[in-house]
Amino acid sequence: MALIKNETRVGFIGLGIMGQHMAGHFLDAGYGLHVHNRTKSKADGLLGRGATWHDSPGEVAANTNVVITMVGYPADVEGIYLGDGGILARAKAGTYVIDMTTSEPSLAVRIFKAARKKGIHSLDAPVSGGDIGAREARLSIMVGGDKEDFDAILPLFEVMGENIRLQGGAGAGQHTKMCNQIVVAGNMLAAAEGLTYAMRSGLDPQAVLKSIGTGAAASFLLNTFGPKMITGDFAPGFFVHHFIKDMTIALKEAETMGIDLPALKTAKGLYDQIADAGAREEGTQALIKAYGT
Amino acid sequence: MALIKNETRVGFIGLGIMGQHMAGHFLDAGYGLHVHNRTKSKADGLLGRGATWHDSPGEVAANTNVVITMVGYPADVEGIYLGDGGILARAKAGTYVIDMTTSEPSLAVRIFKAARKKGIHSLDAPVSGGDIGAREARLSIMVGGDKEDFDAILPLFEVMGENIRLQGGAGAGQHTKMCNQIVVAGNMLAAAEGLTYAMRSGLDPQAVLKSIGTGAAASFLLNTFGPKMITGDFAPGFFVHHFIKDMTIALKEAETMGIDLPALKTAKGLYDQIADAGAREEGTQALIKAYGT
Repeated sequence: MALIKNETRVGFIGLGIMGQHMAGHFLDAGYGLHVHNRTKSKADGLLGRGATWHDSPGEVAANTNVVITMVGYPADVEGIYLGDGGILARAKAGTYVIDMTTSEPSLAVRIFKAARKKGIHSLDAPVSGGDIGAREARLSIMVGGDKEDFDAILPLFEVMGENIRLQGGAGAGQHTKMCNQIVVAGNMLAAAEGLTYAMRSGLDPQAVLKSIGTGAAASFLLNTFGPKMITGDFAPGFFVHHFIKDMTIALKEAETMGIDLPALKTAKGLYDQIADAGAREEGTQALIKAYGT
Repeated sequence: MALIKNETRVGFIGLGIMGQHMAGHFLDAGYGLHVHNRTKSKADGLLGRGATWHDSPGEVAANTNVVITMVGYPADVEGIYLGDGGILARAKAGTYVIDMTTSEPSLAVRIFKAARKKGIHSLDAPVSGGDIGAREARLSIMVGGDKEDFDAILPLFEVMGENIRLQGGAGAGQHTKMCNQIVVAGNMLAAAEGLTYAMRSGLDPQAVLKSIGTGAAASFLLNTFGPKMITGDFAPGFFVHHFIKDMTIALKEAETMGIDLPALKTAKGLYDQIADAGAREEGTQALIKAYGT
């Protein structure tokens, strides 16, 4: 059953590019919003619109009944949830905690189990759709956890996204996000290799995109990032170093399952290469640099 | 300037899955149609609808002013165009010859040059869109050759397709098709790896497709062939052995240009592997077999 709106105090921890937009939608929708971020200045916009600041994730958890986190790395997730004075230490029984960071499925299971011992409801709910999806509240949200908890939180997910699906028990949201990132990695390789060939064979690559972007080769990435690859526009929508984190998790999980994913491995290797050469803070379309074009 | 319709006699050589549909549209559009195919029985349907049979490609060329070819391998293209008594030997000056087979760019250039010496107009015009695109006259057609020849033939291309673009001089159509196939190869790897992970991690892969098929991971192949990969439906839309041919050409061209395309190489290796294991005549979605799922 859905939570009652005027009894819902939403905590949001992690106000990066994505998090700021996602948290802002709760203000627009009339929810009470409590926030924390490592760098406080990133909260200024939300505080100016009525959000309440807290000095730590634990403080946010102590003052809310739904805690959403959108941070960087699995180590960050582990620290804010399981660390001393962290979210699970401070949250009251009955609180909902929702990690929307792309993180490790096994960590999602650990948090779920630790939360359950204290009567706290835990969901893992990573997203796809990037900064545009976050801004336009059109994120795809992939959820793992209990059905009743998913049903309770669905109206809050609907504040941020539109393709919202419970994919299974704890960790299933993260596993689904790994599937997404594995496909993204391959499609990005595909776009970079097709356009490298186009440029090196003397074709007009923008004209090539018009021929190949509508048929069997069509992909969201080819049509969205292909033009940027061609013009060398590497402004970040999604950071290279975040994508490397995601691929690292996926490769580790795949290894645990005993499956070999050679395209993912190739992508990870090429992204490491461009990151080492200075592209860590560029957008994922910078992959084309690995092809020397 | 476009050819005058009632002065146009279209020859069509190569009546496989694609060719039969493509040739049939000329009958529907009221053109005279002359056909040849290695296996005559495949022409039966078209002959029943009024097409005229000829016993060789050269005979077709001698009796038409536009010759379209849609055969299997570059060696077939070379034989029917440049062989003794072949198309260029028998066609009259002023004839248009259009190879729509996916073939080698360098061969397209050789045919163009040999044709020009005899006053014959040559275009390379491979397609994308598969059997469905051929049947529904919705093929994407990528053309290389002279602008005047493209303009003359455009109404005939429009009988078979809808995204029709001149990409440059002789060979540019084939190069563009190589770009298409390179992207297809990478996207197919991406779909196979993402779904392998989904199945092996215990997720419901059809539910995963619903989450990831609409966002950053979306591709025509993921959404069209993903469901078939999951259910093990390997009925051919596009044959594994034809795709291996295309990737072989692309890798050879890339090598000539001095560019390394690791995802394409990986795809070729995995397709070789499943072909050796008996999947030559299956559809390209059979790639999932290489992942042991």
